[in-house]
Amino acid sequence: MKEARIDSFDKIAREREAGLAFMPRFDAAGLVAAIAQNRTSGEVLMLAYMDQAAIERTRETGLAHFYSRSRDRLWMKGESSGNVLKVASILVDCDQDALLLLVDPAGPACHTGARSCFYRELRDDGLEFRKG
Amino acid sequence: MKEARIDSFDKIAREREAGLAFMPRFDAAGLVAAIAQNRTSGEVLMLAYMDQAAIERTRETGLAHFYSRSRDRLWMKGESSGNVLKVASILVDCDQDALLLLVDPAGPACHTGARSCFYRELRDDGLEFRKG
Repeated sequence: MKEARIDSFDKIAREREAGLAFMPRFDAAGLVAAIAQNRTSGEVLMLAYMDQAAIERTRETGLAHFYSRSRDRLWMKGESSGNVLKVASILVDCDQDALLLLVDPAGPACHTGARSCFYRELRDDGLEFRKG
Repeated sequence: MKEARIDSFDKIAREREAGLAFMPRFDAAGLVAAIAQNRTSGEVLMLAYMDQAAIERTRETGLAHFYSRSRDRLWMKGESSGNVLKVASILVDCDQDALLLLVDPAGPACHTGARSCFYRELRDDGLEFRKG
């Protein structure tokens, strides 16, 4: 019985990894991580989380939607700022618990006004703002 | 009292966002997300998680270390395959719950042998292997 369960688990893991079925592996909170990358410059813009509804709305509209853990609701990136992310393609990682959105941003991706949320670099003695 | 608590929370949030102190915002499991990006090609290679010890080991050694949620332990990427990730810099996002490692990979980043874990694209009818 235990062996059968392990076999079945392995089969699902293999199918997730090598197969062509989209089987997102949501965490206990029902979320997968989603990275947004500027598809032209290659710059990584932000990391957020998606639930099933956010994935569906993103696919339907072509605009990135996420699940806000702090506000506990679905949101469209740029819904208040206008800085939407147009999604050109969605890539899926090996174990299907992370997505990579290749996007065309309408403006700065970060709510602080920075082009990317990753605007500081870790140095020996703390953080340093990046140039450019 | 409640207002004082909110003020203090806001102050910490502002300091996290605008300040130069490294104050990683670990989740309930003690983890932050960490994206590895090839610093030359810009390709996003993988997403994994780091605890405090993984951050420290990465900074000490210059090689990416992560916390494995499935194996429940610290691991060095490439410890068995040899495909280590040399970390050139570590970027921190606005609310300090995600890191971006700019790396020079010694080989394929994915345990499947793929250069990146993001080797499939989501299409209308399922996944498709990416070229290149």
